[in-house]
Amino acid sequence: MKLVTYRAEGREKVGACVGDHVVALPYGSVTSLLASLGTLRAAAEKIAQDPSTPRIPKAEAALLAPIPRPNKLLCLAGNYSQHIREGGGSVPGKEKMTPRVFMKPPSNTIIGPGQPVILPRIGNKIDWECELGVVIGKTARFVTEKTAMSHVAGYTIVNDISERDLQIGVHRERRPGDEWFDWLNGKWFDTFAPMGPCVATADEVPDPHALRLSLKLNGEVKQDASTGQMIFRVPEIVAFVSTLVTLEPGDVIATGTPAGVGSTTNTFLKPGDVMEVEIEKIGAFRTPVKAMA
Amino acid sequence: MKLVTYRAEGREKVGACVGDHVVALPYGSVTSLLASLGTLRAAAEKIAQDPSTPRIPKAEAALLAPIPRPNKLLCLAGNYSQHIREGGGSVPGKEKMTPRVFMKPPSNTIIGPGQPVILPRIGNKIDWECELGVVIGKTARFVTEKTAMSHVAGYTIVNDISERDLQIGVHRERRPGDEWFDWLNGKWFDTFAPMGPCVATADEVPDPHALRLSLKLNGEVKQDASTGQMIFRVPEIVAFVSTLVTLEPGDVIATGTPAGVGSTTNTFLKPGDVMEVEIEKIGAFRTPVKAMA
Repeated sequence: MKLVTYRAEGREKVGACVGDHVVALPYGSVTSLLASLGTLRAAAEKIAQDPSTPRIPKAEAALLAPIPRPNKLLCLAGNYSQHIREGGGSVPGKEKMTPRVFMKPPSNTIIGPGQPVILPRIGNKIDWECELGVVIGKTARFVTEKTAMSHVAGYTIVNDISERDLQIGVHRERRPGDEWFDWLNGKWFDTFAPMGPCVATADEVPDPHALRLSLKLNGEVKQDASTGQMIFRVPEIVAFVSTLVTLEPGDVIATGTPAGVGSTTNTFLKPGDVMEVEIEKIGAFRTPVKAMA
Repeated sequence: MKLVTYRAEGREKVGACVGDHVVALPYGSVTSLLASLGTLRAAAEKIAQDPSTPRIPKAEAALLAPIPRPNKLLCLAGNYSQHIREGGGSVPGKEKMTPRVFMKPPSNTIIGPGQPVILPRIGNKIDWECELGVVIGKTARFVTEKTAMSHVAGYTIVNDISERDLQIGVHRERRPGDEWFDWLNGKWFDTFAPMGPCVATADEVPDPHALRLSLKLNGEVKQDASTGQMIFRVPEIVAFVSTLVTLEPGDVIATGTPAGVGSTTNTFLKPGDVMEVEIEKIGAFRTPVKAMA
């Protein structure tokens, strides 16, 4: 059978080709949570304040990632000078650099507070990276730095879990680029993007570059920095990324991690570890680490 | 306001933090088209054959991409020897290589038959790449080559449009990796993944490695090859990718392009061009090229 999506009566429909006809199938598509974020807020505030709305204690709420399935989970590599240097890289100065943007696949990587990072069967040196996540609220395409902030709906915390030593190519004859694909693919494993505990809407975060950000491993502080140390700041990042892709409501951009990742001291995640990430004005959450079954 | 997703009464709900409570918001999530592909077929066949089901002539159907928003659009780089060589690369032999996997952001790149590729404002050398797209029908994680094909629901055509000379870094001081991020980001522009005309279900494609694949530019044949020339074949690709990420229903893996891309002869897309891609047993579709408004 040949399945198709097509437009009829002004909307998307699903069908099958039979002979030279497209046959309508009774399957519709729906507005996603993410596409609604931009318009949801005003009505949601009112509902939230209504005492008759059902509620449960926060401590009893089983939180998931605030945006479990964004269309895009974009990430910056090397956006804090001390982190670039701890990895052996050079920082020629912002005016001589461009932001480095990559993606994690959202649907398999994003997990919520309390959910475990699973160390994959082929994993070796798996590391943490606490990052400020920018959540897009309004479609952005070729926006300027001046107007970029009007496209930001809020902020969250993303832990960009990273395999530093992917061992998929032990039999390989080294070719240029191998190390880049390994680096990229090492970001993609299931559960490698803990996100939470909430989206703090932009009105609660007057200055996203004045937030203390930290990560503790088993209670020991590993990362402790200010988002003010970012090389490329939120409006620059949003403007830059919007020249590459159309940013959509619900998209998340993780803005890079400060110094203090595990690879600097050859410390990597192992089963039983617990990470705790925290960013001022957003919140904190814990992530246990487990071996793959 | 702090928006959260949480679990209550056995399902995902959306809420807001008010004081120390999570307040329920009247917003639900729904099963997506893609997650249903695996189970849809049998019922759909029956409905499709029912003469009372509404139908319109195929020629009148406004086709969209068959899977407009997969969770993941994965692509192979360098999976046909002649294409690797035309780009100046070396092919040490399959046993000394690993598949190279990257992603395009699905939500902004995928367009359907007849929809135009838009040359972005910062674009320079924009090229075509006709590819067989493998559509996943059943969740796959660490599957073997032997069982991989049972996770494939069908096939489609993907044109992996690529900017070969991204000019975002004219002021940059060259650092290792710059060219690699440029290469990756040059795959991401809006409209850079024409897909269509259908998903041919696997039963219609007994051998995905015996399909003639071609691309014409303004009527002139530019690519004309057999999918039998792939270095890594469909079961190997699905098995390999499933060691990196969980493959989900609706995910699409573009399996690499054969020789005949434009960069070999310094021919690139310009406004007014029309591409026509075709793969045996799947179909064909045309893609016009326009300048960005």
